[in-house]
Amino acid sequence: MKSTSDTRYNQRIHVDFSNMIAENIGARGIPESDFTQAMIDLQYAVSQTDSKRDEMKWRDLHSSQDAVLCDVKRIASRVRDRFDTFVVLGIGGSALGPIAVHQALNHLHYNDLPHDKRNGPRLFVEDNVDPQRMSDLLDVIDPRKTAFNVISKSGSTSETMAQLLIILDLLKKTVGEGWVSHIIATTDKNKGNLIKAAQQYGFDTLYVPDGVGGRFSELSPVGLLPAAVCGIDIDKLLAGAKYMDEICTDEFNDNPAYVLAVLSFLSQRMGSNISVMMPYADSLKYIADWYAQLWAESLGKRYDVNSNEVFCGQTPVKSLGVTDQHSQVQLYTGGPYDKVITFIGVETLKCVVDIPKELESIPDIAFLGGHTLNELLSSELYATRYAVTKSGHMNILISIPEVNAFTIGQLLMMFELQTAYMGEILNINAFDQPGVEEGKQATYALLGKNGYGSKLAELNAAKEANKTYSV
Amino acid sequence: MKSTSDTRYNQRIHVDFSNMIAENIGARGIPESDFTQAMIDLQYAVSQTDSKRDEMKWRDLHSSQDAVLCDVKRIASRVRDRFDTFVVLGIGGSALGPIAVHQALNHLHYNDLPHDKRNGPRLFVEDNVDPQRMSDLLDVIDPRKTAFNVISKSGSTSETMAQLLIILDLLKKTVGEGWVSHIIATTDKNKGNLIKAAQQYGFDTLYVPDGVGGRFSELSPVGLLPAAVCGIDIDKLLAGAKYMDEICTDEFNDNPAYVLAVLSFLSQRMGSNISVMMPYADSLKYIADWYAQLWAESLGKRYDVNSNEVFCGQTPVKSLGVTDQHSQVQLYTGGPYDKVITFIGVETLKCVVDIPKELESIPDIAFLGGHTLNELLSSELYATRYAVTKSGHMNILISIPEVNAFTIGQLLMMFELQTAYMGEILNINAFDQPGVEEGKQATYALLGKNGYGSKLAELNAAKEANKTYSV
Repeated sequence: MKSTSDTRYNQRIHVDFSNMIAENIGARGIPESDFTQAMIDLQYAVSQTDSKRDEMKWRDLHSSQDAVLCDVKRIASRVRDRFDTFVVLGIGGSALGPIAVHQALNHLHYNDLPHDKRNGPRLFVEDNVDPQRMSDLLDVIDPRKTAFNVISKSGSTSETMAQLLIILDLLKKTVGEGWVSHIIATTDKNKGNLIKAAQQYGFDTLYVPDGVGGRFSELSPVGLLPAAVCGIDIDKLLAGAKYMDEICTDEFNDNPAYVLAVLSFLSQRMGSNISVMMPYADSLKYIADWYAQLWAESLGKRYDVNSNEVFCGQTPVKSLGVTDQHSQVQLYTGGPYDKVITFIGVETLKCVVDIPKELESIPDIAFLGGHTLNELLSSELYATRYAVTKSGHMNILISIPEVNAFTIGQLLMMFELQTAYMGEILNINAFDQPGVEEGKQATYALLGKNGYGSKLAELNAAKEANKTYSV
Repeated sequence: MKSTSDTRYNQRIHVDFSNMIAENIGARGIPESDFTQAMIDLQYAVSQTDSKRDEMKWRDLHSSQDAVLCDVKRIASRVRDRFDTFVVLGIGGSALGPIAVHQALNHLHYNDLPHDKRNGPRLFVEDNVDPQRMSDLLDVIDPRKTAFNVISKSGSTSETMAQLLIILDLLKKTVGEGWVSHIIATTDKNKGNLIKAAQQYGFDTLYVPDGVGGRFSELSPVGLLPAAVCGIDIDKLLAGAKYMDEICTDEFNDNPAYVLAVLSFLSQRMGSNISVMMPYADSLKYIADWYAQLWAESLGKRYDVNSNEVFCGQTPVKSLGVTDQHSQVQLYTGGPYDKVITFIGVETLKCVVDIPKELESIPDIAFLGGHTLNELLSSELYATRYAVTKSGHMNILISIPEVNAFTIGQLLMMFELQTAYMGEILNINAFDQPGVEEGKQATYALLGKNGYGSKLAELNAAKEANKTYSV
């Protein structure tokens, strides 16, 4: 499927890692021979990931959801017909995926467009419990014309459940009879609290399959319903994921997710504890946020699978080109050799904008006239890669032919597979998040949940024991 | 002025650094004696910064702008009376400050409010040259009702000048006679291209004073005009900055900017090359972005002031509580000891939102009912600090009594002073950005600007010399 005769090939995304290699960028790069050897030595990461395919249901979402897709489209159609606003209540993976895909594929000022120019209802994704956030949202929506998609696989996400209680109460008061049709639940089919609530009231419900954790759930109903509601072609999104899965199942030298994992491993070993993602397109801005969760939560781990303390995890950093050239690039070129920068470039953007010839008496401005914003953007990407490379800092370029549902599907699957391979290379469990338990339990204790008395005592004792330093 | 008898004291922001100290958090913290000694040893950073007060005009903006404020208010009033939309054309400091202050002090869905509920015209800040961004903006504004604030101190910012050429052409075509009144220029009074363009056409113009670089310019007309246009009390913003400047001029032990600089220095020396800023309020989300520029561009430097290669610079990371508890906190608790996390908490939020008692048959949800979102948010902040501390990771809490113009003014000045002190401690120039020159020149070369032929030859030679690695 990597052959150029595959009709999908001209929409394939590519990875250029020339600027990772010492022979090109100097002593701070990876010697070509190290890379070649590592590609051979670490192949077990691919075969072990492949052998766990049955557990990793997120990998099959592109082909396992025929019946689900009917439900998603049916509900989406109902929402589009009946409501002018769609609000996602969710946090973490339940929010970051929907935001990233919407920003990538819809108008950048989608909510500001008049109704007939939009692809669907207005979209708000509420991923915080700041009371001002809730209050300000309620100032700009009419609950009588709004559908709410409550997303929590476990149904134990306090933030989302608190939002649900507020919205339940609001709908009962403002909509009255029929309020139940304003809520769609996306959750586990069999366990947890949200399915109980959904059954109690009879909400329309979609299910997150087993083996699909929050940060790997964008291609499940978690992401598909918001996408379909806002007019995105979810079949093409899945087709893109399928194409990338096929690419990555083939020969290891032509597997971009594996190449990225090997480069991550080698650069981390050389001291790069920071991974910057810098797309050069506003549409891809929140792909970097989605990736930051995937990378941080999957690979930031105290223990390996044999319970050895490893304290591993690269810190992901979100950046945006060209914007952050005026904020972060000084650090990237002048600062320490502690990071890898992954640029994302788009070959053909959605439109062309000319820079008119004006102010011709001022040469330092006038030279821009006659070019296009597209040329300016691509020149700045080229120039920034050049400057970062010249200063000897490792960097990668991911090239996307154009931003559409098919290429975004590829991109998501590529990063998910890179993360899974990296978990195998580091010998850690990339699919759990034990480090957030402590905070959850402390929150329960502070809110007086039953059974957390001893945790509350622990919190109070810690407070007593500590000396305060402040200014 | 730190005395509790000062009437401003109850609005003073505070820094709690208990969780930086080894006696509280264990071996990965800073021993109290090291901290105490460093506070004495590094005082030169404060006195040297104070002695350069004449060069650092950004520090005096709270008191040096009486005449300027009249101009700002006059122009703001004209814009508010006449236009329904205000667009900032700027990048870097010209965008990040206006965005941060607007998000902090105005409604979170400001542009979505009906006109009579807003504090002023709709605001768009255009800090990229992505053609889709420009095209999508033009879909949602009416140039005949829109004012454009072009901001560039040097007037040589290609991105902003390209935007200006596009908008000039658009206004001439759509507005015709009188189009000049739609543009306000903010730039250097004497040099550069933008002042020439402004004089050629007769734009309303505001000036960025000498000694005020882009990332230190929020309290100059760069930030004050957009703030005043959108109804923010700019006098209170400046009064807050003045209060913090006074606090930091006094006894060094009570100088929060200095304490933060000393803690940054010590933690970096112990291996923390990452600085996370995590406000627990949506209103403060973009303060972290503004800070990321300030910290990265000021302190990410290849050379010290004596031209020694130092490659210094902590990498700033933006995070948002509670949202990123579900994205990044797994890494912060389980990952390496390579970062300091600065939480920002707000004591009194703008509103209180109750969580109603619903779903009482499901105890794991029902325990939330009867609380408020405010309690949930503050409990999660407390719990997350506890979890991060328990895992031995250094963290700081900045407490803000409430988010208002006076406290935001304090916050900006505190971070600016922290950055200036840090420059002195590291013996680097915190006010230049030589590392972005290479990329600028390469862009000029690629766009065929006169005089960059040899740079273009250099780029082509580099391309020839490199071997391509891709997948």
